[in-house]
Amino acid sequence: MKVVHCEQIEAAPVNMEGAVGCRIRCLIGPDDRAPSFSMRHFEIAPGGCTPKHTHGHEHEVFVLEGTGLVMEGDREHPLRPGSVALIPPGQEHQFRATGPGPLKFLCLIPHPMRGASDTCGLTCGCE
Amino acid sequence: MKVVHCEQIEAAPVNMEGAVGCRIRCLIGPDDRAPSFSMRHFEIAPGGCTPKHTHGHEHEVFVLEGTGLVMEGDREHPLRPGSVALIPPGQEHQFRATGPGPLKFLCLIPHPMRGASDTCGLTCGCE
Repeated sequence: MKVVHCEQIEAAPVNMEGAVGCRIRCLIGPDDRAPSFSMRHFEIAPGGCTPKHTHGHEHEVFVLEGTGLVMEGDREHPLRPGSVALIPPGQEHQFRATGPGPLKFLCLIPHPMRGASDTCGLTCGCE
Repeated sequence: MKVVHCEQIEAAPVNMEGAVGCRIRCLIGPDDRAPSFSMRHFEIAPGGCTPKHTHGHEHEVFVLEGTGLVMEGDREHPLRPGSVALIPPGQEHQFRATGPGPLKFLCLIPHPMRGASDTCGLTCGCE
């Protein structure tokens, strides 16, 4: 059993093209022998965003702190603590931090060996 | 894309033998066409617990609110907001709410069709 606090895990900048003010922590991933899916923690600085992008696997998202938007193509969905989002495979999406503080959320993805057709660009050893 | 707030989803009591003061919300599951894994929200009342049990799939857990313990057999791991736990397949475990308020956490599980050898007793249509 692995039990840690998320702040014990170092945050790395997301260097993917189009990412602004994003940091990622890999909370649970293949290095922990997680069999099926990975849990990542994202923090987006005020005014920042993830790239607008598409991939062949889903995201399961839970917002922990801050306010923002998740874009479904050009459609805006507001986010606040406790918001839940399922982004299906193939759906163009982007997260934006629109509040005065950072937007923090969990974003879980399946492992490629479990059937995802590709991997997400926001890599950190969790994929 | 599904975007909701977790409080929009009704909580159901966990009626499994050994559960005390537990409620579950199915935030994302097969009914949402989630391809790989389900996101559930648990709330355990002060002094309550989940059953001590074992199954063939993992749990990925993130603590949102309150304090408690996750038992690894007879070993106690303290939990607080931001705690992360990976419970591997086959590991006996139990969650206990030890603080003055409820213990709230996310607990994610793989879908059986994705290879888990059985399903968890804490059912709600998310499995």
